[in-house]
Amino acid sequence: MAKTRKSAQSGAGEEMDGIVIEKVSPEVDGGKFPAKCIVGEMVTVEADIFKDGHDVLGACIKFKKKSDEGWDESPMTFFDNDRWRGTFVPQANTRYLYTLEAWMDRLLTWCRDTEKKCLGKVDIKSDILEGIGFVKAMAKSASEGDKPKIDLLIKNLKLAQDQPEKVLALIRDQNFLKLMAKYPLKEHLTAYDKTLEMVVDRSCAEFGAWYELFPRSQGKIPNKSATFKDCIARIPDIKKMGFDIIYLTPIHPIGLTNRKGPNNTLNADRNAPGSPWAIGSELGGHKAIHPELGTMKDFEDYVRAARENGMEIALDIAFQCSPDHPYAKEHPEWFYHLPDGTIRYAENPPKKYEDIYPLDFNCADRQALWDEMKSIIVFWIEKGVKIFRVDNPHTKPLSFWKWLIDGVQKDHPETIFFAEAFTRPKVMKYLAKSGFTQSYTYFTWRNAKAELRQYFEELTQTDMKDYYRGNLFANTPDILHEFLQTGGRPAFQIRLVLAATLSSSYGIYSGFELCENKAKAPASEEYLDSEKYQYKVWDWNRADHIKEFIAKVNQIRASNPALQLYKNLEFHHSSNEAILCYGKRTRDNGNMVVVTVNLDPFRVQEDQICLPLWKFGIEDWQTYQVHDLLNNKKYSWKGPSNYVRLDPQVTPAHIFLIKK
Amino acid sequence: MAKTRKSAQSGAGEEMDGIVIEKVSPEVDGGKFPAKCIVGEMVTVEADIFKDGHDVLGACIKFKKKSDEGWDESPMTFFDNDRWRGTFVPQANTRYLYTLEAWMDRLLTWCRDTEKKCLGKVDIKSDILEGIGFVKAMAKSASEGDKPKIDLLIKNLKLAQDQPEKVLALIRDQNFLKLMAKYPLKEHLTAYDKTLEMVVDRSCAEFGAWYELFPRSQGKIPNKSATFKDCIARIPDIKKMGFDIIYLTPIHPIGLTNRKGPNNTLNADRNAPGSPWAIGSELGGHKAIHPELGTMKDFEDYVRAARENGMEIALDIAFQCSPDHPYAKEHPEWFYHLPDGTIRYAENPPKKYEDIYPLDFNCADRQALWDEMKSIIVFWIEKGVKIFRVDNPHTKPLSFWKWLIDGVQKDHPETIFFAEAFTRPKVMKYLAKSGFTQSYTYFTWRNAKAELRQYFEELTQTDMKDYYRGNLFANTPDILHEFLQTGGRPAFQIRLVLAATLSSSYGIYSGFELCENKAKAPASEEYLDSEKYQYKVWDWNRADHIKEFIAKVNQIRASNPALQLYKNLEFHHSSNEAILCYGKRTRDNGNMVVVTVNLDPFRVQEDQICLPLWKFGIEDWQTYQVHDLLNNKKYSWKGPSNYVRLDPQVTPAHIFLIKK
Repeated sequence: MAKTRKSAQSGAGEEMDGIVIEKVSPEVDGGKFPAKCIVGEMVTVEADIFKDGHDVLGACIKFKKKSDEGWDESPMTFFDNDRWRGTFVPQANTRYLYTLEAWMDRLLTWCRDTEKKCLGKVDIKSDILEGIGFVKAMAKSASEGDKPKIDLLIKNLKLAQDQPEKVLALIRDQNFLKLMAKYPLKEHLTAYDKTLEMVVDRSCAEFGAWYELFPRSQGKIPNKSATFKDCIARIPDIKKMGFDIIYLTPIHPIGLTNRKGPNNTLNADRNAPGSPWAIGSELGGHKAIHPELGTMKDFEDYVRAARENGMEIALDIAFQCSPDHPYAKEHPEWFYHLPDGTIRYAENPPKKYEDIYPLDFNCADRQALWDEMKSIIVFWIEKGVKIFRVDNPHTKPLSFWKWLIDGVQKDHPETIFFAEAFTRPKVMKYLAKSGFTQSYTYFTWRNAKAELRQYFEELTQTDMKDYYRGNLFANTPDILHEFLQTGGRPAFQIRLVLAATLSSSYGIYSGFELCENKAKAPASEEYLDSEKYQYKVWDWNRADHIKEFIAKVNQIRASNPALQLYKNLEFHHSSNEAILCYGKRTRDNGNMVVVTVNLDPFRVQEDQICLPLWKFGIEDWQTYQVHDLLNNKKYSWKGPSNYVRLDPQVTPAHIFLIKK
Repeated sequence: MAKTRKSAQSGAGEEMDGIVIEKVSPEVDGGKFPAKCIVGEMVTVEADIFKDGHDVLGACIKFKKKSDEGWDESPMTFFDNDRWRGTFVPQANTRYLYTLEAWMDRLLTWCRDTEKKCLGKVDIKSDILEGIGFVKAMAKSASEGDKPKIDLLIKNLKLAQDQPEKVLALIRDQNFLKLMAKYPLKEHLTAYDKTLEMVVDRSCAEFGAWYELFPRSQGKIPNKSATFKDCIARIPDIKKMGFDIIYLTPIHPIGLTNRKGPNNTLNADRNAPGSPWAIGSELGGHKAIHPELGTMKDFEDYVRAARENGMEIALDIAFQCSPDHPYAKEHPEWFYHLPDGTIRYAENPPKKYEDIYPLDFNCADRQALWDEMKSIIVFWIEKGVKIFRVDNPHTKPLSFWKWLIDGVQKDHPETIFFAEAFTRPKVMKYLAKSGFTQSYTYFTWRNAKAELRQYFEELTQTDMKDYYRGNLFANTPDILHEFLQTGGRPAFQIRLVLAATLSSSYGIYSGFELCENKAKAPASEEYLDSEKYQYKVWDWNRADHIKEFIAKVNQIRASNPALQLYKNLEFHHSSNEAILCYGKRTRDNGNMVVVTVNLDPFRVQEDQICLPLWKFGIEDWQTYQVHDLLNNKKYSWKGPSNYVRLDPQVTPAHIFLIKK
């Protein structure tokens, strides 16, 4: 085999004539960051591959587990405009490396030219002599078993040198083509000048329905904390709704100093439970459990009970401390200090958060601090937790996250980190590139058709799809959007369907199923009497809940593989500004789903939607079946344009299964 | 000054907390290739610059001549969405380097936060103490002259610590702001991790009107070669038309072996002059002049005469040989060989070009070959030629061109290389990235409105503008487009105006001014009786020439700076599919040109065009003057939408100068 050169070299010398390999996809920021995929996903790799002149080229993907020695190869094929494409399927939940190789195929080039000459009735005597030389070169790498075939070929070429028809037949012979594919005569063999990394996550990184809850609100006794035992009792209810992940707000001891009272008031009275994000007291810090919730064993029982019910527990990780956190005494050097030597509260001038000390991740002793933060994650991994929702990652150094996630996933590749950053778009993207498995999005604030379409095309159709997985929360303890406050039960159904079908990962914060919509103040997105600051008892079966609707939507997700994929979103045409139409398909069109949602919670809306049937493998004249999985009605449609009518008081959406 | 870190580092250690600097523009393929600009051009550099948290950042461009030691700095300012922008003006025709630096401005961050606290009536005693610490740190780098001012500032801050209004006044004081700008307190000082290169060309690389001619056709005696003396006699005619560059087809001795006859026939008779691209005979090769044209002194006289008339001579460089070229005898190892040991002709199966031997740029002795090719360029530079139009660069190794152009421009930065590649788009782009100063385009084959707009938006509005300068030839010796064959005089006027105003560089091949439009065959783009294969005598003043029209267009280009810029093209709305409307403006709107062209050479077309007056600094209610520079008529327009009517039999275009 020829010596491999590096792509696109310049300067005189031995390395001058490589093949150009560029515009590789996926390649995040020139290879500075890894791309992401899922175990068993068919990863498509594309590149521009070309060379001066008109030679026939060949190319392949080379890939391997980062920890492996040898490379696997997967062929690439030309498809258009110097663009080549291939696929590979990573089979393990670990980091992979991939790169490309291209070459000029000497024998194929000769075949193509000789074929043209034969057809053009040009004298080929000299070409046959050349070709025999190439075939002889090919023979050098051939197996003993193939050598006689090659000798015969050489003999036949010699005999045919005056008979273009015979040469044509030889060149086009399947056996010859097979030999050439087996022993390609590679010249100008060129390696892409970068080795790229791919994070191969487990399936839960792409597909999952999340249910967020405050453990202390899962009980039945007013003004008293619920326990993990109460949480275990709620598992069947959550399972029945079809959720995959139960995500808990912080479970650690809560500080007393400057504790917040109900509705975020200062000077809380003695009985106020405080915010779970004011982490740490004399009872312990980030590795401790609030005694009101139970013991470590109770927690481990909860994790186990969830697992036995096919669900996982996710923890909220907030790297900040209450003034009473043990770190404040043991490691004052990890905090910011005022000129008078005291530790600085969190602030966003002129606002102050007196119950929180931020950590100084750039302090002189930062390596110890970083190591300690990492040990918190590892601690909970050892307790059975594999999913961490990270609070406000954008207020810590960006490089810290890369260091932390790389470090944890090296030993625990199954770990999922979910970035709760609602900040400027480029910072959110950078966090995802730095390693976060999933990310929050602006979904809650995208309610109009144009903004939904634009945002989700950015998320799933641009290079963001290679590193950023948007997990759509329909509400959070901090975000009760005006749409939900004012739109009633239809608004909740609309946002649920959107979240559950626009992305393969979505979540709700408990109370959503009850259509809870009372805000703290008219222009506020804060809940009234938020669980963040007080004990609450919920009637999980109160009138007007939409639990059956949620269960139905989650069951549709579970039984339609197309909805379990993230990057396959496609929007379809609808004229009515209140009707959003989109869909998802599996790569082989084996499962095709089309969703139409009435974005208007108040009025009936109707429209002619238009489907790209050619993509679905359906001819315009063919009748096809659309099965509304929400209400189990079936319709026969024909042609791309069809009528839909959505009454928000009945069901504000169709989720159609399309069958040829 | 703080230690400079590299941008976006990861991993624990000293380098962890840099500022992110990314998405820098211009930056060609991640910095693999240099961007291009012109001496004296105000180069805009942009980047995404951000950091975790909410600190106030600062940033600058650093730039220098490649050969210089120290860096110059130019400030950058934030403008939107974490995007920063700055400019610098390279003053010399040489290669420059540029990079970026960003930092957290400690004192500005403190000022912003303290200002908010003052306004929010929050206690600031501790903040003042902190601020005094920062001001003291700033004092360390202050000049002796400024130190008393800083001491006074510290004193005043101490006095004001209980009086937020006084603190506010101090923070907002111009003298304080000036001191902070002079001695910024830079933390997290971060250097962009790449140093980028910029080719700074002379103005002719961006702006010029080219006139291509066959020297042997410039005389008056039939069936006889003209000479450089005849060429000199034609200078006034070409100058009168307003051209800047006279570009000559190859001027070297022409081979005899397999010489082509008129209309590309084989077996030419003894008197056929042959194709000038079949370079080399026993009379010499690429460094010799065809004796029929004159002596080297005659050529140098021609170069001088052109220069004295404000024009430059450009040469056609075709790195290929006739079988009679001295290289074939002296360096047979530079060519491809057939199995029988003879040298291989050029071919594109099944076509053969028996009068040409291609060079094997990858031959074993390639360093000698490459050096010889470079010596050809240097030879002609020494004869006074600074512009080279390179024939078929895409059939030679891509890396060869980078090596050649880098090498030549190192000693002769004024040299301009113009790539004559009509091949796949990515190969054409790669040649431009590899160093070609200008490139041919698909312009001749873009005649409809939509395709013109799409193509020119790609050329001038995408990142292509950073490295690819399209020089628009309205015709070439190989391309007489059907539009010109069939559209008559209006077609020639249309294509001239388009070429001359869509790009700042354009050209015609002689005969265009005579509306010469006879093709060799109906579906062919070849000229009938092409000058490529025979002597020709032209009547340069024959009826129906459009020389005055060309002169007028070139004069408009010469007197309107907006038309001398390449990247400032903008399309304007017109509804009629036959009317293309676009314009160019200088950065300060000091010169604003709007062009409307009737793309239909047969019919009168009319339309309401729509101008973005807000970009022009004109209010919708204001009257403004449009001066048609082609026919010297002036109109008063008001509002964005105005009527145009273009009769191809009169003038198929308006070139409007817009005046407020």
